[in-house]
Amino acid sequence: MQVGVLGTGGVGQTLAAKFASLDHEVMMGTRDVQAALARTEAGYGAVPLAEWQAKNPEVKLGTFAEAAAHGEILVNATAGMASLDALEMAGAKHLAGKVLIDLANTLDFSKGFPPTLSIANTDSLAEQIQRAFPEAKVVKTLNTVHMQVMVEPSLIAGGDHHVFVSGNDAGAKAEVTKILKEWFGWREVIDLGDITSARGAEMYLALWVRLMGSLGTPMLNFKIVR
Amino acid sequence: MQVGVLGTGGVGQTLAAKFASLDHEVMMGTRDVQAALARTEAGYGAVPLAEWQAKNPEVKLGTFAEAAAHGEILVNATAGMASLDALEMAGAKHLAGKVLIDLANTLDFSKGFPPTLSIANTDSLAEQIQRAFPEAKVVKTLNTVHMQVMVEPSLIAGGDHHVFVSGNDAGAKAEVTKILKEWFGWREVIDLGDITSARGAEMYLALWVRLMGSLGTPMLNFKIVR
Repeated sequence: MQVGVLGTGGVGQTLAAKFASLDHEVMMGTRDVQAALARTEAGYGAVPLAEWQAKNPEVKLGTFAEAAAHGEILVNATAGMASLDALEMAGAKHLAGKVLIDLANTLDFSKGFPPTLSIANTDSLAEQIQRAFPEAKVVKTLNTVHMQVMVEPSLIAGGDHHVFVSGNDAGAKAEVTKILKEWFGWREVIDLGDITSARGAEMYLALWVRLMGSLGTPMLNFKIVR
Repeated sequence: MQVGVLGTGGVGQTLAAKFASLDHEVMMGTRDVQAALARTEAGYGAVPLAEWQAKNPEVKLGTFAEAAAHGEILVNATAGMASLDALEMAGAKHLAGKVLIDLANTLDFSKGFPPTLSIANTDSLAEQIQRAFPEAKVVKTLNTVHMQVMVEPSLIAGGDHHVFVSGNDAGAKAEVTKILKEWFGWREVIDLGDITSARGAEMYLALWVRLMGSLGTPMLNFKIVR
C-alpha cells in the first residue's frame, strides 16, 4: 500500500519505519526537504533526518504535498500545534476521499510544565482537521501512547491494554482498526464514537504527562477493566 | 472519626453511607436542610433525601457550615459547578487545617452531550478550591470512577485497577491514601503530584463519558500497565 506520513519527527520516523518494515511504499512529508535534511538537531524521540534517511533508504522524502499525493492512506504525525498548517500545505485535494490517521497532540510547553493543550474541552484538533478538510476521513487514534508503543504494543504488559479510534466514517474506523490490529499488533481497539470523541482522547494527555512523571517512564498505557 | 460530607446527591449519599458503615460519625451538609428534605425528586444515583435519611438514621443532616464544623475530615461531594459556592457557605474557618477530599467534576451538560467541563486545561476545580481556601489541605481523588466504585473498587475486575491522589500536602495525601486503601479497599493509589495535577484527573472525564457510552456501563475503570 502507498502510505504518506506527514511529519519527520520522532512519531513520523517511528511510523514510517514500521510501515516500510511491512513492505508498504512510504513517503514522509516535510515543509522543506533540503532544510529538513540539513538540520543536525532532532526532536524528541527522533534522529537527525539525514542520518535517519541513510538508515531507511526505502522511505522516500518529499514535501507535505508530495507525501499526501503519494499516500492512499495518510498519517498526520506533525506536532499538534502545527498540524493545520502542515495539512494546508499538503493540500485539500490530496486529502480528499482518503483515510487520514491523526496521531497528534496539541501539547503546549511554552509556559513550561505542566503543558497545556492549545485546543481542548469544547473542540479538538481532530475536529478542527475534519472541519477544515471535510472530504478527508479523519480517524483519531494512538495519540494516547508513546510513539514506540504505537507500533509495538507488546512492549508493555505483553500488549494487554487498549487504544481508541474516533471518527465520523465507520468504514475508515474499520480500516484503521484493521491496521492497528493486523499491522501493529493491537489486541483491543475501542471505538469511542464520532470525531467529537477525540476530545476525550486528546484531553487524556493532561493525565498522561502526570502519569509519566509519577511512574518515571513514558512506557505506560491503560487497560480498561469492567 | 468525625466526617463531614458536603453534598446530599448520589455521591454524597454513597460516601456518607460508607463512612457510617465503618462506624464513623457522619454529618451530611446541604444548603437548606428543610428544603432538601422536602424534595421528592433526586439526582443521578440518589434517592430523595427524606427517604435516604429514614434508611440511614445514624447520619446527621446539617447545613454546609454545620457539616464542615462537625468534620475532622471533609469531603466535597457537591456538583462541581456548585462546589465553590457550597464551600463558601461551609466557611473558610471550618475548612482551615483540615483534609478536604475533593471528588467533584465540573461536567456541564447545559449544551447537551457530550458535556464539557466548566474548568479545564489551564486550571482545575481542585486548584480553584485550594486557592480560595489556602488553609484547607485539598486532595483530589476518586473523581475518575463511578460513585459505587469509589467506595467499593472490588465491584469491577476484583479491584485490580487504579485511583489517583493530587495535592500540595504530602501528609494529607498519605492520610487520604490510607482511607482509600484501608476503608474503601483500593489496592493501588498513584500520587500524580501537586494540586495542579488534578487537571489531568478532571480532564480524563471527557474520555470517561465516551468510554461509558461505548462500553454501555459506568462500571469501568482503568488499570495502568507498564
